[in-house]
Amino acid sequence: MPDHAYPYHATDGRPDRPLAAGLQRAFDRYPAPRPEDNPLFTNFRYTPLEGFDDHNGDGTVSRRDPSKVLYEHGRYYVWYTKRQTATPPVGMGRAREATDTIASADWDLAEVWYATSDDGFRWREQGPAFRRPDRPAVGWRSNCTPDVLKWRGRFYLYYQAFVEPSGLRGDHCPVAVAHADSPDGPWTRSDRDVLPNGPAGSWDQFAIHDPHPLVHDGKVYCYYKSAYDRPDRLTLGLGLAIADDPLGPFEKHSLNPLINSGHETALFPFERGVAALMIRDGNEHYTVQYAPDWVNFEIASIVEFPPTAAGLFVPDAFDDSGEGQGVTWGLCHFVNAGTPTTQHSILARVDCELTREPHDPAMKSTHRLHKPEFYFDQGLSPEQRARAERNARAFQPADAGVLA
Amino acid sequence: MPDHAYPYHATDGRPDRPLAAGLQRAFDRYPAPRPEDNPLFTNFRYTPLEGFDDHNGDGTVSRRDPSKVLYEHGRYYVWYTKRQTATPPVGMGRAREATDTIASADWDLAEVWYATSDDGFRWREQGPAFRRPDRPAVGWRSNCTPDVLKWRGRFYLYYQAFVEPSGLRGDHCPVAVAHADSPDGPWTRSDRDVLPNGPAGSWDQFAIHDPHPLVHDGKVYCYYKSAYDRPDRLTLGLGLAIADDPLGPFEKHSLNPLINSGHETALFPFERGVAALMIRDGNEHYTVQYAPDWVNFEIASIVEFPPTAAGLFVPDAFDDSGEGQGVTWGLCHFVNAGTPTTQHSILARVDCELTREPHDPAMKSTHRLHKPEFYFDQGLSPEQRARAERNARAFQPADAGVLA
Repeated sequence: MPDHAYPYHATDGRPDRPLAAGLQRAFDRYPAPRPEDNPLFTNFRYTPLEGFDDHNGDGTVSRRDPSKVLYEHGRYYVWYTKRQTATPPVGMGRAREATDTIASADWDLAEVWYATSDDGFRWREQGPAFRRPDRPAVGWRSNCTPDVLKWRGRFYLYYQAFVEPSGLRGDHCPVAVAHADSPDGPWTRSDRDVLPNGPAGSWDQFAIHDPHPLVHDGKVYCYYKSAYDRPDRLTLGLGLAIADDPLGPFEKHSLNPLINSGHETALFPFERGVAALMIRDGNEHYTVQYAPDWVNFEIASIVEFPPTAAGLFVPDAFDDSGEGQGVTWGLCHFVNAGTPTTQHSILARVDCELTREPHDPAMKSTHRLHKPEFYFDQGLSPEQRARAERNARAFQPADAGVLA
Repeated sequence: MPDHAYPYHATDGRPDRPLAAGLQRAFDRYPAPRPEDNPLFTNFRYTPLEGFDDHNGDGTVSRRDPSKVLYEHGRYYVWYTKRQTATPPVGMGRAREATDTIASADWDLAEVWYATSDDGFRWREQGPAFRRPDRPAVGWRSNCTPDVLKWRGRFYLYYQAFVEPSGLRGDHCPVAVAHADSPDGPWTRSDRDVLPNGPAGSWDQFAIHDPHPLVHDGKVYCYYKSAYDRPDRLTLGLGLAIADDPLGPFEKHSLNPLINSGHETALFPFERGVAALMIRDGNEHYTVQYAPDWVNFEIASIVEFPPTAAGLFVPDAFDDSGEGQGVTWGLCHFVNAGTPTTQHSILARVDCELTREPHDPAMKSTHRLHKPEFYFDQGLSPEQRARAERNARAFQPADAGVLA
C-alpha cells in the first residue's frame, strides 16, 4: 500500500498521518470514533404506560413533565404535572380568558401528583403530593414540572410555582420546594421562591423552569432552564444553581447559561461528570452532551427522537460517587395526544442505553428505517406546494459559468 | 443588572465576558447562534412523485439513487438506478443464488434510466440512458447510482459498474462513466473504471460508491463514498478525486477520507465552499457540513429526517462561481416501500431551505411535533420488553452514597 493511502483497518486510534478536519474529529471529539462503540449514543424506544385514566382522551385531564424516577421502599416513584379541568385550556394566546377554573396553558391550574410502579410499565396513580396554597402565596395559580431530590434521608420536590396564568406576560415563574420524610408524604411546602428569577435585564429574569436537582461535590446542583431574548429570537439556556442545603440559599453559577440549546433537558451523573439529553431548540438539539466538570458541556453524540421532558431513572443521582453509571429507562411526555380540540399530554415510557457498560447492540443502531408514509405525513403545506410548482416552472438558468 | 449576569438580549454576537464551553460554541461553531437564522439548517418535507409505474408495488420494479436534478431544454432531468426483474431480489446474504435473471441486492441487475419533468412533482419515465455492456466488460452485471456532470456543453454520467452480484464478497465495484452531447443521449460508455478502487490495504480498496461530481477551481471534483474496516467495524468515509477532464485521470486527495460519517452523501456549492448533507452512519449523522476549502468539513447544523440518497437540484453545480447559492429541492429514495416480501425502493421529492437567502420560516422550525403513535411504533422488541421488566423487578439499590 502506498505510504499516503489511509488504511482499511484503522479505527482503533488516530493514525499517525495528516487528517482532514472531519476525520480528526472522529478521534478527538467523541467518546469513541463510531457511535456503535460510544457509551453516550443510543436509540430510544417508546412504550405506552398502563394505569393512567385520562377520561378517554377528552382533553380535560393532562399529565406531563415527569420527575426523575426514584426507587424507594421496593417500588418506583414518579411525580408529575397533572391538570384536571372541566374544559380543555383556552391556550396561552387567550390567557386573558382564563379564570379560577379555566386554564390558559396545558400546565395552568395544575398540581403535583405522583404514581408508583413495580416494573416501570404499569403504574398506580396515588393522588396529589400536596395541594396548591391559597392566593397570594407563591404557587397559588399552578404547580408544575416537579423534580425530586433525596438528601440525607429526606425528600425534596422542586417545582414551578405560578402566581398568574401562563401567557399573560409570557411563562413567568420562580421555583418553589416542598419536603417530606417519606416519598409518600406528608409534604411541607416552603411557599417561597427557593430558586428566584434573576435580576432585571439578566437572561433568567422572567422564568426558572424545569428544575433538575442532582448531588455533586457534597452540594445540591440544581440545573434549570430559562428562555431569553424573547419575543423576537427565543433562545433557550441551561442554568446551574448550587446550594449547601436543599432549602437554599442557591447561588447561580457565574458562567450561566451553560448550554446554547435544549428544552426540558434531562441530566444524569456519568463517570466523573454529568451528561445532558438535549431535545429541541438550538443548534445543538438532538445531542447528548457531557461535562466532566459539571459546567463545560461538549457534544458526545447526535441522536434521533430523543424523549421530550424525560424524567429518567437515575439510580445514583444523589450518590455523589464520582462514578456515574448512566441510565437505561425513564418516563417522558407527549404534548399532542388527542385531536386538535381534545389535545392533552400523556406520560410514556422510554428505554435507552446510555450506560458505561452497554450490552444491547440493538440500542446502538445507526440504520433505523422509518416507513415512507411517516415522511410523506410531513409534507408541504398547500401554499408551499403551489409555490414550489410555480418556482419550478418559472426557473431560468443563470448566465452559465465559464465551464458550464 | 449585576455585572456578572448574562444579559437577556444578547444574541447578536459574542458578549464580552467569560463563557462556558457550550455557549462559546453558539458563537464560534455555527453559521449563526440560532438554527432559525442558520442558512445551513432546514426542515425537510416529503412528497410522493407522480408518473412512475412500479407494478403495483409487487417488488419486481425498483427505482433508487437519483442523480442530481438537471435543468436543460426547458425541463428537469433525473437519472437513477432501475431494477426490473421477474422476482424480488434474494438478498445480499444469498448472493450465491443470484443468476443472470435473479438479483441479489436491490441494485443488482440494474441499469441507469432517466425521467423528465416540468415541475419536479410529475415525472415521465423516458427509458434507459444506456444498456449494460456484454460480459466481461466493467459494468456487465449491474449499473447503478448514477450522477451527472455537465462540462463544456457535454454531459457525463458516472455510475457504479459491477462485475459480480453484490453480496458475493461485499459490495465491490469501481465507477465508470458515459458521455453524450445531449441529456437525451445517445450515450457512449467508456467501459473502464474511470474512478478505480484504491490499492490493496487502503480504505477504498474494494468499493467506490455514490460518485458525486461538481466543478471547482476549473477542475472536476468527484466526491465518493467507500466503506472500510469491514466486517467488524463498518465505517463510512467520503473521498474526493480531482481531474482536469471528466474522463480522467482522477487523482485522489491525499487527505481522504474527508468525513467520518454519512451514507449516500449529497453535496452542493455554498458560498465559496461546498456543503454536504450527512444522513445515517457515524457520530456525525444527521448533520449538514460545510468545507470552505472543499476538503476540511465542519458541522454547520444538526437536522431531523434528512433525505436518503438525495439527488438535489443544484442550479449552479457546475458554474464554478465561488458563490454557491444553495438548494431548495431534489429527489431522494426510500428502500423500504412495500411489505417484507415485496420490498422495493421508490423515488420521492424532498423540499428544504438550504439557501443563502432563506424566505420561508416554516422550513426552519426547531419544534416539529410527531404524533405519539410514531414513537410507539418504535417500541421495544418482546425480548427487550421482558428483559426491562425483569431488570426493574430485580433492581437492588447500591450502597447509598454518603449523602443519600
